[in-house]
Amino acid sequence: MKKNALWLLLVLMLPAIACGRKPEKKVTVSSGRKEEDLVTGLPGQPPVNFRHYAGYVDLGPRQKQKALFYWFFEAQHNSSGRPLVLWLNGGPGCSSVAYGAAQELGPFLVRTNGGNLTFNDFSWNKEANMLFLEAPVGVGFSYTNNSVDLGKLGDQVTAEDSLDFLINWFTKFPEFRSNDFYLTGESYAGHYVPQLAEVIYDRNKKVPIDSRINLKGFMIGNAAINEETDMAGLVDYAWSHAIVSDELHSNIHSTCRLGEEQTSNTTIQCYENIKAFMEAYNDIDIYSIYTPVCLSSDSSSSSSSSQRRPKLVVSPSLFTYHDMWDRFPAAGYDPCTEAYTENYFNRKDVQVALHANVTNLPYPYTPCSGVIRRWGEAPTTVLPIIQKLLTGGLRIWIYSGDTDGRVPVTSTRYSIKKMGSKVELPWRSWFHASQVAGWVETYAGGLTFTTVRGAGHQVPVFAPAQSLTLFSHFLSSTPLPSKRF
Amino acid sequence: MKKNALWLLLVLMLPAIACGRKPEKKVTVSSGRKEEDLVTGLPGQPPVNFRHYAGYVDLGPRQKQKALFYWFFEAQHNSSGRPLVLWLNGGPGCSSVAYGAAQELGPFLVRTNGGNLTFNDFSWNKEANMLFLEAPVGVGFSYTNNSVDLGKLGDQVTAEDSLDFLINWFTKFPEFRSNDFYLTGESYAGHYVPQLAEVIYDRNKKVPIDSRINLKGFMIGNAAINEETDMAGLVDYAWSHAIVSDELHSNIHSTCRLGEEQTSNTTIQCYENIKAFMEAYNDIDIYSIYTPVCLSSDSSSSSSSSQRRPKLVVSPSLFTYHDMWDRFPAAGYDPCTEAYTENYFNRKDVQVALHANVTNLPYPYTPCSGVIRRWGEAPTTVLPIIQKLLTGGLRIWIYSGDTDGRVPVTSTRYSIKKMGSKVELPWRSWFHASQVAGWVETYAGGLTFTTVRGAGHQVPVFAPAQSLTLFSHFLSSTPLPSKRF
Repeated sequence: MKKNALWLLLVLMLPAIACGRKPEKKVTVSSGRKEEDLVTGLPGQPPVNFRHYAGYVDLGPRQKQKALFYWFFEAQHNSSGRPLVLWLNGGPGCSSVAYGAAQELGPFLVRTNGGNLTFNDFSWNKEANMLFLEAPVGVGFSYTNNSVDLGKLGDQVTAEDSLDFLINWFTKFPEFRSNDFYLTGESYAGHYVPQLAEVIYDRNKKVPIDSRINLKGFMIGNAAINEETDMAGLVDYAWSHAIVSDELHSNIHSTCRLGEEQTSNTTIQCYENIKAFMEAYNDIDIYSIYTPVCLSSDSSSSSSSSQRRPKLVVSPSLFTYHDMWDRFPAAGYDPCTEAYTENYFNRKDVQVALHANVTNLPYPYTPCSGVIRRWGEAPTTVLPIIQKLLTGGLRIWIYSGDTDGRVPVTSTRYSIKKMGSKVELPWRSWFHASQVAGWVETYAGGLTFTTVRGAGHQVPVFAPAQSLTLFSHFLSSTPLPSKRF
Repeated sequence: MKKNALWLLLVLMLPAIACGRKPEKKVTVSSGRKEEDLVTGLPGQPPVNFRHYAGYVDLGPRQKQKALFYWFFEAQHNSSGRPLVLWLNGGPGCSSVAYGAAQELGPFLVRTNGGNLTFNDFSWNKEANMLFLEAPVGVGFSYTNNSVDLGKLGDQVTAEDSLDFLINWFTKFPEFRSNDFYLTGESYAGHYVPQLAEVIYDRNKKVPIDSRINLKGFMIGNAAINEETDMAGLVDYAWSHAIVSDELHSNIHSTCRLGEEQTSNTTIQCYENIKAFMEAYNDIDIYSIYTPVCLSSDSSSSSSSSQRRPKLVVSPSLFTYHDMWDRFPAAGYDPCTEAYTENYFNRKDVQVALHANVTNLPYPYTPCSGVIRRWGEAPTTVLPIIQKLLTGGLRIWIYSGDTDGRVPVTSTRYSIKKMGSKVELPWRSWFHASQVAGWVETYAGGLTFTTVRGAGHQVPVFAPAQSLTLFSHFLSSTPLPSKRF
């Protein structure tokens, strides 16, 4: 872990790794039949004509003490003929239910504190059957009956447990076994997704055809994939976007030797400069550098939001009222959404409707885990996995919302360049609704890189329609529109 | 001009230098009394309790054949006790009336095609008496009776003519002679403003005290000030903001030797790469990289807008309706504003009310000149002037909207760094309405650099309240707010 010291220092900016109480109860929940997981009467839900399921899948026979929580939405039309897509959020420790499903790309968005869900016109279940997984144990409603497990988490455990989840989930939903299957995710899922793809890929070679998972490819956004380039890109992005001074930028480069693999020789000067760098993001949202931060005092009292957002007691109307920010109307982007989501999933009636928290977890629901105490195993790069799976024939798309400061577009470009892939279709703009939605470059061997203009870390929050277009073209493996019409 | 070849190539992206017919009529307009310039009954104007004047000032005795058009707004309150501020737009060839006054910081904004003016809650005449000048001749309503003059334009002519204008304007408005006087402007006014400040400064040393102009300082935004660093910054900005490919970025650097003074040895490869670079901005607004472009077909038929905006025939509702763009409500930012403005100032009733176009110019009004045929004299840098005037005791603030791609924040940072000024107050965020409005750094000797977060080239369009705060702190020479409250 020494090599990861700098990375971890930066990761502290994420709300993920924080201490908390461990679960105490030991109740095992059967995976049960899927009919028991059908969600009916979800509070505040608008009426829809597709089914959705939520509940637990235990990881037996290997680790029956663990149970992972999922929320699954059938496609809005022609469910059986459409692909199955798993979405994963990052952290480590953040929930795909609280972020992906409820704030980004699911059909039901938590947009207010009032309890009503907003139907998402750009939900990805317009294109596919969408499965949201809370992994590993300790994230969201997922749990273990042996708290020792929480101290042993890392990338490898997450990948193996997610694979066990999938195997058992397909037992519950055998009708989706033959559908094309894709992995998607953002942020630290830049680790999870390729790693899970690899264990599926490797397993597929060993098991009989009818046991295989029909994995076709994956797509990751604003994804941490290669520590040294990710760090260099993060620091350069802050400079080129006028967030840090010339002096600090130059000092970090000279004291931390960014772009090279970190050694234990890292100087105290480097740590001090990195600290100053992190402080430069104290007052803006590193995940979306041009939008306001949430200043609402009544949004949430739990740890995750308050770690991430500045805690300042002012009326929410103060910042929605004024000038620049009133470009965002009430129906548009609201930086306090995360807090509303946290409140929603802490409601007992919501938990009952979702068949969640059946063991009465001794801690509140948080979008990013408060009980994962350490993250043991994490490679500094997943580029070799990406290259292996490209060679193995998987379709791989990497996208980047270009106003994210956390895993910025510069990081992703440095990381992809590191792979040395040959450019097949050169850099060009792509369009949505007659405007440039971003830029795209295609590489030999099945890799596509695309940006989403003006979108922060959680791309579907900021550019919902563009994201759906991107998702649809990824699934159909067709080039993004290169003209206004 | 050889040294300027590359710069000119880039300047072509600006709508300024374009061919057109030259004025033919030869009528001399007396400068007259200010009472004759009082504007009453301006079409669509909301009622206000301050006076405004518009009209011509000829440049006699030196160049009586030239007449420059101005629009002057007394401060909203306590006019006599407040400073007098001149605002200049750039180009070369663009109008301070069509941009500064009518789209950016004046009290009456042209926000619709309907003819009604919108009162600007963040007008700079809340803080000062605001004078907008169309300079040099050939810009807006300003003209010459000797069309030969149009072929002899350049920075020096503009500075000298603007000085003559001011001398004569003070004869018309002697009551403002003793007020503190400041120059402000943006873009190519990064040349105009320091150059005009210099001729005022030099003249003040030669004339009797009562003839002096009471110049205290100037403020320039997204300003072209040093060609070599401006160009390097422009190219680097496009790369770090994911607009051009790694390959093109690297090729421009290797073939054009950016950051060095250009010589006549510039290769054909460099020109080709620069062309590709310009094409990368074909489909987005280089002046505001994250906002939509104007696609309205009925906005304008004249040359300037269509040169700058892609000409595409779709209903305006198409782009305001969809997703990402609907974050901008009807009352907010509208990329077609420039076209509305052009239409407004072409109305005969508007021209009559403003005492404009009294000679019946044989060409339509355009926000950027269609009749200036060449720009003869322009130094590659104004940094020596800035340094001279800092030493001379002027207050100088330089600001930068950080989502402008044309004279981006990277360019301004490179240019300021080139001056080698000592940092006095280090880089820090500044606040407006409880959110970070930008960053600021103060240098020894009276120079302040500040950014405006999320604002494009014409900063007051995108961040009106922040701009007014910035202006107010510049005038009072007080530090920008460094805390949320």
